[in-house]
Amino acid sequence: MTQAVRHDSMRARNLEVVLGEVSRGGPLTRAAVAERTGLTKSTVSKLVGDLVDAGILAESGLTRAGERGRPGVEVVLSGNRVASLGLEINVGYLAVCLLDLAGEVRLTLRLARDNRGSAPDEVLAELQVLAAEALDEADRLGFTLAGAGLAVSGPVGDGLLLSAPHLGWQDVRPGEMLDLPVPVELDNEANFAALGEVWFGAGELDFLYVSGEVGIGAGLVLDGALFRGAHGLAGELGHVVVSPDGPPCRCGGRGCLEAYAGQEALLAAAGGPATIADLVALVKGGDQRAELACAEAGRALGLALASAVNLLDLDRIVLGGIFAPLFGWLSGPAEQILRERLGRLRGSVPTVTSSRLGASAATLGAAGRVVHRVIAEPGPFLAAHREAREA
Amino acid sequence: MTQAVRHDSMRARNLEVVLGEVSRGGPLTRAAVAERTGLTKSTVSKLVGDLVDAGILAESGLTRAGERGRPGVEVVLSGNRVASLGLEINVGYLAVCLLDLAGEVRLTLRLARDNRGSAPDEVLAELQVLAAEALDEADRLGFTLAGAGLAVSGPVGDGLLLSAPHLGWQDVRPGEMLDLPVPVELDNEANFAALGEVWFGAGELDFLYVSGEVGIGAGLVLDGALFRGAHGLAGELGHVVVSPDGPPCRCGGRGCLEAYAGQEALLAAAGGPATIADLVALVKGGDQRAELACAEAGRALGLALASAVNLLDLDRIVLGGIFAPLFGWLSGPAEQILRERLGRLRGSVPTVTSSRLGASAATLGAAGRVVHRVIAEPGPFLAAHREAREA
Repeated sequence: MTQAVRHDSMRARNLEVVLGEVSRGGPLTRAAVAERTGLTKSTVSKLVGDLVDAGILAESGLTRAGERGRPGVEVVLSGNRVASLGLEINVGYLAVCLLDLAGEVRLTLRLARDNRGSAPDEVLAELQVLAAEALDEADRLGFTLAGAGLAVSGPVGDGLLLSAPHLGWQDVRPGEMLDLPVPVELDNEANFAALGEVWFGAGELDFLYVSGEVGIGAGLVLDGALFRGAHGLAGELGHVVVSPDGPPCRCGGRGCLEAYAGQEALLAAAGGPATIADLVALVKGGDQRAELACAEAGRALGLALASAVNLLDLDRIVLGGIFAPLFGWLSGPAEQILRERLGRLRGSVPTVTSSRLGASAATLGAAGRVVHRVIAEPGPFLAAHREAREA
Repeated sequence: MTQAVRHDSMRARNLEVVLGEVSRGGPLTRAAVAERTGLTKSTVSKLVGDLVDAGILAESGLTRAGERGRPGVEVVLSGNRVASLGLEINVGYLAVCLLDLAGEVRLTLRLARDNRGSAPDEVLAELQVLAAEALDEADRLGFTLAGAGLAVSGPVGDGLLLSAPHLGWQDVRPGEMLDLPVPVELDNEANFAALGEVWFGAGELDFLYVSGEVGIGAGLVLDGALFRGAHGLAGELGHVVVSPDGPPCRCGGRGCLEAYAGQEALLAAAGGPATIADLVALVKGGDQRAELACAEAGRALGLALASAVNLLDLDRIVLGGIFAPLFGWLSGPAEQILRERLGRLRGSVPTVTSSRLGASAATLGAAGRVVHRVIAEPGPFLAAHREAREA
């Protein structure tokens, strides 16, 4: 290792340590940061100066007596200068949010739109309009954009949407079709929604987030981080076997969970209401066929979740997407199956709860990932900031 | 952090760095270690001296021209002074192995014994006899024992064997019932066997190890480490749902994989041979009923694995335990199901291979975990060594 490389990597590491202390424990004076990190006060002052300069930290305006007797100015994460964009293409809507570095949502836009069978460039042009509105707002507020995340309803590997069967898309790179001033990180909506739950929902760090939509996906969160599998395709709960000779599924198999509890199967079993909102109205009105359809879907969900718990040893399951508004009619039958199949072996069954975020989970997770990366590893953002200013 | 605490933690960290370089890249001279780690030569000399003194490193006897022009003596992991013990209680046998720090097996002992319905203290007394033989051998060879690992056929949490249904045990602490001069680490045999495969088998770092015995367990290895779940109970592949209304299972559910492909179900379906060796003889002789039973078990295995791959995104599956000798009759039907259910969605299906280690995987993994921990984190072993010598 050369001296210069060692110095750069030490600086990067120290930036992470300093920003980590302030983001977890702030507001803090520079002296308190030095005390907590074991770094010298002059090193801390230099690093805090750079972070304030780039808009990541801000002086809170408060002063307090420092640990060594001198009053010091406290610094906190700045909510006014750096932001990120969360974007989502779902089967039934497009959505965008603007999130600041302190975790406040500054703007949300949502456009109901039936994207089934639409060409990618057509859908992306619509999303671009929403994104442009969010960029204008970011500009107006004086934010520097740190990045963007785009949630899509299909498996993603290395920036490529492998397939979105309900949209009819295959091998599309929607992130590259947008005209944005920052790179776009693409991921599956269940993955982003699971991260949204970690950061903006109940705050749990270990759970399986189940995203019920036309398809059914899941995001497995372990110690606050996503489990992605060998190719980023983990969490395909929709194709877990419920019954090996059940109805055919678009994956080529039979009796997958999606064939019982996916949106289309569920609406058909309920006698054909047009939307989930209509189905909710039916079950609220006591419609027996609709109630039975939800109970059947709940039992199928329970069987797939029993397999998932046996493999993954989960304590907590969060039901999101269409399962959130139907929670009252699905969760009882699902939990009954979990008790029957897991109780004797494990002594306990996982908690099943409804997502607090509903349909905004994925955009929050997409924008949140950018914000969390800047905080966990501020070096690249600082370097880009320096370059932009020198240019 | 006080000065002393900081010094100790820095020393521990530097020990890890130095030993890591030698274990990955050795034999190395002290000068080469200093060059690679960025530590000073005097620090490296002191740390290497302590590691040689404790028997973790040894001078190889070779010298070579050092990077700075001076010839230096090379050091390597020592295979002659520190060892660990691997122990296993399975339904049909007891086993012990003695493993040195350089990864050589110095002794293996195996006793066929039907442990079904045996009282824990009776089985542990038998295991103690085997362990004592291994301890004598370690003594004779001049080894210091660094620790022991004990593999058991049931779910384990915090040193407690929660249940071993095929033995009829519940809430037993077998590690504490042994009289050994070192602490015993308890874990599920599928977990230890999976680690055995990483260190002594095909050397893959990402796979699902499937342990077929009377029960069916699995150890999920991710980047060379075990995935354990919320309570260490992950990998219960035997209770993944194959068919929701299938034959009853001892877990309280119906149609679990174990009810189709566990040893007892398999032998019964094959017309009742007494042992797996007898079943292997039947299929080798072309017995149709036995072949059909294996094919049915293979299809059930394929269905459970399809669910596992959908959830975990696995590239590789290793079949061990009774599935290894039956691999030729099970794997074809299992792979057929995997192709049908995974091919369209993923484009590829995971590789299915047979374990190379057979029945010794679990003891190797149990002993190997101790050895790998000493190498990854030598501080505690060095401290114990120093205390023992000062006493």
